[in-house]
Amino acid sequence: MGRRQRQPRPRLVAALHAVQRLPEERFEPERPLWIAAFMDEEGTRFNAALFGSRAFTGGDVTALGERADADGITLRQAMAAAGFDLAKAGDADRVSEVGAYLELHIEQGPVLDETGTAIGVVTSIVGLRGYRVRLTGRANHAGTTPMQHRRDALAGAARIALELREAARAREAVTANVGKLTVEPGGANVVPGVADFTIDVRATTAAAMVELEGLVEATVARIAREEGLEPTVERTFALDPLELDPDLVDVVERAAAAAGASSMRMPSGAGHDAMLVGRHVPAAMIFVPSRNGISHSPDEYTAPAHVELGVTVLANALRELLGTGRG
Amino acid sequence: MGRRQRQPRPRLVAALHAVQRLPEERFEPERPLWIAAFMDEEGTRFNAALFGSRAFTGGDVTALGERADADGITLRQAMAAAGFDLAKAGDADRVSEVGAYLELHIEQGPVLDETGTAIGVVTSIVGLRGYRVRLTGRANHAGTTPMQHRRDALAGAARIALELREAARAREAVTANVGKLTVEPGGANVVPGVADFTIDVRATTAAAMVELEGLVEATVARIAREEGLEPTVERTFALDPLELDPDLVDVVERAAAAAGASSMRMPSGAGHDAMLVGRHVPAAMIFVPSRNGISHSPDEYTAPAHVELGVTVLANALRELLGTGRG
Repeated sequence: MGRRQRQPRPRLVAALHAVQRLPEERFEPERPLWIAAFMDEEGTRFNAALFGSRAFTGGDVTALGERADADGITLRQAMAAAGFDLAKAGDADRVSEVGAYLELHIEQGPVLDETGTAIGVVTSIVGLRGYRVRLTGRANHAGTTPMQHRRDALAGAARIALELREAARAREAVTANVGKLTVEPGGANVVPGVADFTIDVRATTAAAMVELEGLVEATVARIAREEGLEPTVERTFALDPLELDPDLVDVVERAAAAAGASSMRMPSGAGHDAMLVGRHVPAAMIFVPSRNGISHSPDEYTAPAHVELGVTVLANALRELLGTGRG
Repeated sequence: MGRRQRQPRPRLVAALHAVQRLPEERFEPERPLWIAAFMDEEGTRFNAALFGSRAFTGGDVTALGERADADGITLRQAMAAAGFDLAKAGDADRVSEVGAYLELHIEQGPVLDETGTAIGVVTSIVGLRGYRVRLTGRANHAGTTPMQHRRDALAGAARIALELREAARAREAVTANVGKLTVEPGGANVVPGVADFTIDVRATTAAAMVELEGLVEATVARIAREEGLEPTVERTFALDPLELDPDLVDVVERAAAAAGASSMRMPSGAGHDAMLVGRHVPAAMIFVPSRNGISHSPDEYTAPAHVELGVTVLANALRELLGTGRG
């Protein structure tokens, strides 16, 4: 949920609270119930995102053991120092024992907060393509090189960033971002000869993802040609979108209604453990609002009343999934 | 002309050659003739551009003595180590003894090379305004923040760079450049919350310069407002344009014609020693082609035949300025 080691774990606490309610309500589940606390969803320390759910779903995480943190300590060393053996991570592969998966999370976006909606019923998790692009033009004197003679790498990057933004704005549930950009040589009086930047595009369906891929490649190629720039494009990351299980999504929606909570269906723009687990078993997610859409920041905040509603919705959904019981 | 310490000094050699021709042609000047080799026009080592011509025109250069190079050596120390005393730099103030000033230079731009013209008759030296701009939006998750909720500082910077480029393209002898740009926090999956960049605009007339200043300020303010960004704009550099002396410009043009050289009138987009000297006495400049417009680079090249034509034009101009002689 957050990236600091010692912050509270509201998701885990919320799951415990939800499960605690079942015996209080004299509900007896017909099936076993697990509470999962997956390690290092964000993966910020070792750049090994979704470590816990990767191991749980049978992914080979031993290859991540050599990834090092900022101090040069590897994941393998850190695990050993805490009394764990990376070689045994395969023991965590138990997804085949699970029938369904629910995840409660803050939205990390502004939609619920701005619309005053208490519960987000997540229908899909976006797919993602990451690119690293280099445009090479010609560095030149900013005063003596007439405008029509320039091969300005930054101008090309600027056009690409703005065109992709327009393309994303014109589509449903699509985002495009240029988050990292550097120019060379980087002198105030020099036309930029090289621009290096990232592109991050996301969409909720496989078809939209394919369209976006083509759009990124065509936009970079066309603008580079028009600006007299040499492009190189490297795809650095690819994760396909995941449709969450329609029946489970309905369960969550009913659970929100039973709690008297306002709700809306929405995609998730961020990756989650559900993204991996949901490729193996039916999965759904419950979102609660993040104030101002802020996350990964000391300003991240979700009101206690919203957390409590989330817990209630989770408990309601568990009751439906685990059997009628005697409640 | 170049920025490395030990490269040849073609301007000085060309001036010596031109002056050498006069007695060879039995020409006797009616007025004295000085050859000037101004120190450190570029000012790259100590960030003290035009040091020599500043001192020659009575500018206070002692304040530059504390500027240090990359190794921490100050200009004052470097001068002392070479046997010079910065305190005596005022002795160089002798512009009042000069009647006219001619400067031979490579174009540092592509116009002569591309048009196949041998001599550029410089009519003016551009004025320059430099700015440092910061746009502050809101860093946010690139996946979970819908497009319409973003306050993307890089998008604002991209629009400003492209609009100023269009404005410069639509005008005569105007340039605009964004040469330096950084974004924060600079993560591929984070909407940029801050963009810092430079703007460099140039024009050849005072009126155009005033219009450009207004345009820069209005463009930054409008786009920042439209994008929901907070702008701060700092003007870091201001140098007014200089019209070269019309009579001396005519002298140079006639000198080119007398040499049988093709010529064209053109502004200079770069600053030169003539920019300071020309504020005190009539000044003109002669340009020779730079291959591909390249300068300040190991690839800088001017063909020997072009240098020789430049020397001939300079000698022709000197004959007209210094009296009819007996040639």
